[in-house]
Amino acid sequence: MKAGILSIGTELLMGKTVNTNATYLSKEMAELGIGVYYHYTIGDNPGRIKKALNDLLNTCDIIVTTGGLGPTLDDITKEIIADTLNLKMILDERSLSIIKERFVMFNRAMPESNVRQAYFPEGSIILDNEKGTAPACIIEIKERNKCIVVLPGPPREMSYLYETYVKAYLKMKNVTKMHSVYLSVYDYGESAVEEKLLDLIAEQTNPTVATYAGDGKVLLRVTASGEDEQNNIDAVNHFVRTIKERIGNYIVSEKGDDIDKAVFDLLIEKGLKIALVESCTGGKLTSALIKHSGASEVVDCGLITYSNDAKVREVNVSRDTLQMFGAVSHQTCYEMVKGLVAKTGADIGISVTGIAGPCGGTTEKPVGLVYIGISIGGEIYTFENKFSGDRDLIQNRTVYKALKILYDYLSKM
Amino acid sequence: MKAGILSIGTELLMGKTVNTNATYLSKEMAELGIGVYYHYTIGDNPGRIKKALNDLLNTCDIIVTTGGLGPTLDDITKEIIADTLNLKMILDERSLSIIKERFVMFNRAMPESNVRQAYFPEGSIILDNEKGTAPACIIEIKERNKCIVVLPGPPREMSYLYETYVKAYLKMKNVTKMHSVYLSVYDYGESAVEEKLLDLIAEQTNPTVATYAGDGKVLLRVTASGEDEQNNIDAVNHFVRTIKERIGNYIVSEKGDDIDKAVFDLLIEKGLKIALVESCTGGKLTSALIKHSGASEVVDCGLITYSNDAKVREVNVSRDTLQMFGAVSHQTCYEMVKGLVAKTGADIGISVTGIAGPCGGTTEKPVGLVYIGISIGGEIYTFENKFSGDRDLIQNRTVYKALKILYDYLSKM
Repeated sequence: MKAGILSIGTELLMGKTVNTNATYLSKEMAELGIGVYYHYTIGDNPGRIKKALNDLLNTCDIIVTTGGLGPTLDDITKEIIADTLNLKMILDERSLSIIKERFVMFNRAMPESNVRQAYFPEGSIILDNEKGTAPACIIEIKERNKCIVVLPGPPREMSYLYETYVKAYLKMKNVTKMHSVYLSVYDYGESAVEEKLLDLIAEQTNPTVATYAGDGKVLLRVTASGEDEQNNIDAVNHFVRTIKERIGNYIVSEKGDDIDKAVFDLLIEKGLKIALVESCTGGKLTSALIKHSGASEVVDCGLITYSNDAKVREVNVSRDTLQMFGAVSHQTCYEMVKGLVAKTGADIGISVTGIAGPCGGTTEKPVGLVYIGISIGGEIYTFENKFSGDRDLIQNRTVYKALKILYDYLSKM
Repeated sequence: MKAGILSIGTELLMGKTVNTNATYLSKEMAELGIGVYYHYTIGDNPGRIKKALNDLLNTCDIIVTTGGLGPTLDDITKEIIADTLNLKMILDERSLSIIKERFVMFNRAMPESNVRQAYFPEGSIILDNEKGTAPACIIEIKERNKCIVVLPGPPREMSYLYETYVKAYLKMKNVTKMHSVYLSVYDYGESAVEEKLLDLIAEQTNPTVATYAGDGKVLLRVTASGEDEQNNIDAVNHFVRTIKERIGNYIVSEKGDDIDKAVFDLLIEKGLKIALVESCTGGKLTSALIKHSGASEVVDCGLITYSNDAKVREVNVSRDTLQMFGAVSHQTCYEMVKGLVAKTGADIGISVTGIAGPCGGTTEKPVGLVYIGISIGGEIYTFENKFSGDRDLIQNRTVYKALKILYDYLSKM
């Protein structure tokens, strides 16, 4: 099945909003084995929307539109679809009463213009929107075996409706059953992963494997399709075992989780308290853990000892060490984590000190030199790293590396 | 002038990559007064690229393509354009020698396939790419008064080439001169801004004003166009003065800077040292300052006192205060910043304590309740805030609010 995504909204064409909807829908539909062939973005203009719609109807089986379902006069997606397909617009009383209830719930009077949101092209399958006032719909063009899925523009509403209704609908249309597993790979680049799995990627027919890189992570999706669900599960599991034999040391989750979540879950599971002392990452490492709800159970504190004074005062690094070896050294990194654990009594301590740049580097200690220390089970280990990139990238790479070190020690405890 | 953006790359259609290029180019071209009417995204397929190109040539004066300039066989953008316009592909010796030099510089042998990157449709204006191996080009279709701007896909290379060459080229094509100023608004929502400027937005012809919302900021772009450059500058300045009369308290930069940069610059300018103590924001506030190069001149330390123990141990909050008023209270917030400044001797102290949720809220102290304290010039002030949203959003809103408080005090010093 071929699909096209039609994003409607002048704000996208003015560069006000990044079109994350098209990316989300493409990734989701790829998982269902539906190939997305086109993304079109058009402003709130009837003629251009109609032309794009006709173009996509000529080449695609499934068209997903986003945007243009609001109450204002420039929200015209459903009207243009009805016009293009020669369908009447019909008021859906049930949708109208749900919209009215939403306004009552928020203690506001419903403007008359919101009534438009309860009109749909005749014969539409209506999808209730619990996250906003704009209900979505699916219009089936039975004689051509095509359909148009009409979703609102706000990403939160769009993804909710896709997840709740559209995914199941598309699965149903797709007679083939699918099973997917997502592996999160860290500390190993996308091209390195692809090289290790070259034969699997080259020969892939079923299961298939796809890589998605971003934010320090390479996400591997392994998907099997076929009539028998158990066969699909077995095929994926077999494939995943082969992958793990090759790059198992770099896989931190088989649920597609980010590494901060994987580390956080391990800390909760093992009932351990952590304390952190950061310099060049400036709080990014601690906030990666505290972003998770329930952080108070695992995080005692994070100390961002940016200045030398702070290193001495907060975690008892000796002035001699700073003088002799510098703030960016194995020795300082060691004393930071040692002082941290002595002071806090935390089960695990992590220290980070480095040069994030762009200034401050020397030939001996270049920008990107970072030491990471861990105190665990009464032992202290420090690691030297050399990261490349700009300040932001060096900070992020340090955070991912520190989390990977934490993950490795925690998962072996 | 009408423009269309054609993004080429199967990875975009698989949902591997968000199309930030289209957003960037749309925003940039809007600033030049060029209306972008279409975004098309197409995979690495000759037939579909050619059809999209012809569609856009029929309706647009300027077409910008991104992607498909790499050395591999599926990189076919220039070939398809040449084919569509009946142009020969010609080897550009100068480009070839630049590409070869790049490989020498990185100590690598140039694969034969990279020679393809030095071929261009005949008559192309060639744009050197200092950020990668793929040179870009502009193809002018003089008889139709149209042009195709051909840029590489990686955003860093694309934006470099746009900024360095394409912007000036498009400005030159556009006989009208333009002048723009960017105002950064914080602590005031987009719809509130629009309401305050309703008449200016409604009546706008020249200068025009556009709003861009994102990451706690509303960016206002004020643009005047006309033959006389001084007139444009005067017209923009006059418009900016009117805007500042209405919402001046919320404007933190007239260069479009983010608030963390504005605060950082004020600290540098005034030669002040800051210390921070955070609870619910978990390090995000400190890292917003430390992300800037030269942070060691202004940041002494950040303490993330997530647990009650840490609040007592690190910044000397009394156990009685925690017992009587709780960790999320004016009193604790006050003692946090007081203890912080006493300990560090920093010129300015900031404290944050709140409930980021989703758990931990009560009727009296709901999720989103956040106290922010500032110690400055020997005085301490604390502020109560109620933020809505999920955990991530409440953390971010707290960071922006704390930075706004800092900005307000610092700019009055």
